[in-house]
Amino acid sequence: MAENHPLELLVQALRRLPGVGVKSAQRMAYHLLQHDREGALHLAQALQHACAEVRHCALCHTFTEDDVCATCRDPRRDHSQLCVVENPADLAAMERTGAYKGLYFVLMGKLSPLDDVGPRDIGLQKLFDRVDAPAGGEAGAEREVREVILATNFTAEGETTAHVIAQGLKARGVNVTRLARGVPVGSELEYVDLGTIAHALVDRR
Amino acid sequence: MAENHPLELLVQALRRLPGVGVKSAQRMAYHLLQHDREGALHLAQALQHACAEVRHCALCHTFTEDDVCATCRDPRRDHSQLCVVENPADLAAMERTGAYKGLYFVLMGKLSPLDDVGPRDIGLQKLFDRVDAPAGGEAGAEREVREVILATNFTAEGETTAHVIAQGLKARGVNVTRLARGVPVGSELEYVDLGTIAHALVDRR
Ligand SMILES: [Zn+2]
Ligand SMILES: [Zn+2]
Repeated sequence: MAENHPLELLVQALRRLPGVGVKSAQRMAYHLLQHDREGALHLAQALQHACAEVRHCALCHTFTEDDVCATCRDPRRDHSQLCVVENPADLAAMERTGAYKGLYFVLMGKLSPLDDVGPRDIGLQKLFDRVDAPAGGEAGAEREVREVILATNFTAEGETTAHVIAQGLKARGVNVTRLARGVPVGSELEYVDLGTIAHALVDRR
Repeated sequence: MAENHPLELLVQALRRLPGVGVKSAQRMAYHLLQHDREGALHLAQALQHACAEVRHCALCHTFTEDDVCATCRDPRRDHSQLCVVENPADLAAMERTGAYKGLYFVLMGKLSPLDDVGPRDIGLQKLFDRVDAPAGGEAGAEREVREVILATNFTAEGETTAHVIAQGLKARGVNVTRLARGVPVGSELEYVDLGTIAHALVDRR
């Protein structure tokens, strides 16, 4: 098939999706053209719409259609707490618990030295600026943020990210906490991995 | 996140791609919006372009921009041979061998009774009409197609499909052959599965 054939161009475009190799791109293209052209056009529109409308919240950096997202604007939330998560899915997970009423900062990534992802790539300076911002935006006023809760994932990369952020924030004299590691609710010790039990023992309260 | 948020709509649209669940749709949407908006817009365009331009060849049913594809129009090819394949990727595989100079018929699917995919869904009647078509399109002339080579996959579904097609074509008095089953070139018998060896024995020549 010629390289500039619309079908071939579609396969190439689909390959830019993360986790999609040439075989699955081909299967996707065939499926859409054979069985779901409506879905294909719908997807095209959704892509264009999202690219045109979705930006980053000026305060928490999550995806939003507004300059400042609804969560950051919510006066009923505790503006003195800032929960740092890796991405919007983690923010959604925190929200589903219903246990947190503060604000967020979404890193949109994590430190990953092996993949050459450094502090600049995930905008740590933006987080530090956010924490340093005075209450009400008035110069000279005290910080609005009193506590930063690190809720990056409990993976090697998430832990590294949490560690680096904690260093930067402690130098600023901000109160930094980390989600507790421990035994998942509803699990039997017998089936919990040893590292988790060891951490739960150290973090006992 | 609100259900009509452009990001949420994009995640839903991505889920219509085959093999994409909610987790990967989310990862794709984040990736595109965070790191590759150019790729997202490029994909949108490729989808629209393909939907507008790609149709089925009137003769072989494969994807093409023309009424009749370049292969079917090629006067240097043997128009008396018709090779039946499941999809355009299989056609491409046959072409790469350089060993076949006839024409094709692309089923764009396979019979799959368990998934409720019957003869009508994969357009078997179109294949039979194609085989019955008189040479040069002149009524009363003899058939152009002298031999139909069944090159559906050697899976349960591909074999079923080949069997059903063979029945229909034999009733029409057409010469039907099947790609030979056998030991792959370059392989050692010790490592070839038993079913393949058994078939190679039966089909020995
Ligand atoms: Zn926000
Ligand atoms: Zn054709």
